[in-house]
Amino acid sequence: MRLGTFEIGNEERLGIELGDYVLDANRACAHLLAEEGDGDAQRLADALLPSDMLAFLRAGERALEQARRVVEFARQKDLQAVDFAHPLAAVRRLAPVPRPGKIVCVGRNYHEHVNEMNNQVPTIPVLFAKFSNVICAHGDPVPHPGVSEELDYEAELAVVIGKRGRRIGEQAALDHVAGYTAFNDITVRDWQRRTPQWLQGKTFDHCGPLGPVLVTKDEIPDPHSLSIRLWLNGELRQSDNTGRLIFNIPRLISFISQIMTLEPGDVIATGTPGGVGVAMNPPGFMKVGDIVRVEIERIGVLENKIVESDALAATAQ
Amino acid sequence: MRLGTFEIGNEERLGIELGDYVLDANRACAHLLAEEGDGDAQRLADALLPSDMLAFLRAGERALEQARRVVEFARQKDLQAVDFAHPLAAVRRLAPVPRPGKIVCVGRNYHEHVNEMNNQVPTIPVLFAKFSNVICAHGDPVPHPGVSEELDYEAELAVVIGKRGRRIGEQAALDHVAGYTAFNDITVRDWQRRTPQWLQGKTFDHCGPLGPVLVTKDEIPDPHSLSIRLWLNGELRQSDNTGRLIFNIPRLISFISQIMTLEPGDVIATGTPGGVGVAMNPPGFMKVGDIVRVEIERIGVLENKIVESDALAATAQ
Repeated sequence: MRLGTFEIGNEERLGIELGDYVLDANRACAHLLAEEGDGDAQRLADALLPSDMLAFLRAGERALEQARRVVEFARQKDLQAVDFAHPLAAVRRLAPVPRPGKIVCVGRNYHEHVNEMNNQVPTIPVLFAKFSNVICAHGDPVPHPGVSEELDYEAELAVVIGKRGRRIGEQAALDHVAGYTAFNDITVRDWQRRTPQWLQGKTFDHCGPLGPVLVTKDEIPDPHSLSIRLWLNGELRQSDNTGRLIFNIPRLISFISQIMTLEPGDVIATGTPGGVGVAMNPPGFMKVGDIVRVEIERIGVLENKIVESDALAATAQ
Repeated sequence: MRLGTFEIGNEERLGIELGDYVLDANRACAHLLAEEGDGDAQRLADALLPSDMLAFLRAGERALEQARRVVEFARQKDLQAVDFAHPLAAVRRLAPVPRPGKIVCVGRNYHEHVNEMNNQVPTIPVLFAKFSNVICAHGDPVPHPGVSEELDYEAELAVVIGKRGRRIGEQAALDHVAGYTAFNDITVRDWQRRTPQWLQGKTFDHCGPLGPVLVTKDEIPDPHSLSIRLWLNGELRQSDNTGRLIFNIPRLISFISQIMTLEPGDVIATGTPGGVGVAMNPPGFMKVGDIVRVEIERIGVLENKIVESDALAATAQ
């Protein structure tokens, strides 16, 4: 399934993409239960298939099972004629997880990127943070930070946690994954580097597009065989395959969960391949008006436009 | 006012300390409104004085005003005879903000600490992150991480944001502060240092005691004149004054908000003075059974015991 968060009737609602439509999963579940004869179907649907992504993920397999039933139910309907389906073009797409509790980023996790940055191949994963103020959706404008000219992109495969855990073994790691999505770890390079800690260059508002959707793991049996590419204004800048991650996904989940309890909705950004702007000669940073596009096999396209700083600063007050 | 979060009747509730009692602020507000003749006092209280800290902080001056009224109201009552007051000894104390959206930490912000670590005095604030999995309360056990022997303490003054803002000027910075509390930035030193990024040594579960309460800023007219001290097993290890912060609080708020929108409940940990365990000869790290005590003038005592790793690991699963 392709799960997203959409603004429907001024509410953030969990949606399931089905062709050119998005199903309001909770409403569709209520219809399904009513057709099955339940006398208080909306209340039962609220319990079985919550309308927001974090509650949905926390509900686990029970909610996923209802979501699968909803898809089967909807396939038998004329989606133009039901109130729980909306044309994709008519709703606003949000990031699939609009406010992750943690965004754990992994640095130096592809050989080509390690080489282009003149770093050593790490023997221990390099972890750093972004805060959830970075999150925006496919299609959202990304405001140029203004304070720097060194705005760079980083295409990444993101893992979304579906099940709470601490000290997770590698064998069990994928049991804790809800699914996968794309992430652009947008970075202000000079701010990243001017103190010993990268955080201040990593967590500018809206500098973490996530999406377009969370693809559930049943649709991606091997997350280590996906092509990952990034274009800036149509020019291919990054192209690699998640099979070349230095620390693979089970290793990362096991490692990170030695430190912290992973919770549903937490995002692990697995690192970026070679081809970042700062490593080009001359550097190829992003400017206002640029279109940056991440594409990951089986997940889709995450595209954003860089806009003037002040355009979004006003709304962020 | 001394605002906290307490577990009362299996719920997390905003409380106000009054002597040896804690007022359930929302319940007390409902009583007050009922005495004033309101016919639907609990509903009105839920709107005016929310029962959870984040909602309370988001409500801003309106909620603070109600809280002040509640304190005046309670002073006229026999606290043993009302259902909205509980002996402090009878309730469980949680961290005042149990789940901050961001914990922005500042490194190298006292001269003595910069010197003992053989670092340069920074010209730009060094920012790093902890995630909210670190948060625990005064009195909570802190599990030894087990994976390392280098468990260190860092006493810090923490600023709690009360009003949303981006690009806040230094003159307006304190308008965005709700109040102050104490923080212990507990750190696993070898994990902090073994990769270029400190995060993995900084964000172990429960390694960020916060409290005992949020002291509203009206009670701390000058946050740059507070003695800050830390004892390990009764031995004074850190002793300084917040007047010696290299980057003061308005400067930090202004700097950080150039990068990210600050939100109510966000915590800024302003850095630690000299005297950390790793800088001693031989190093003075914390062991299972140790008692670590932070005390900040006008705020109070934040004390925690280091316990065996497995004691809490089981409940964190």
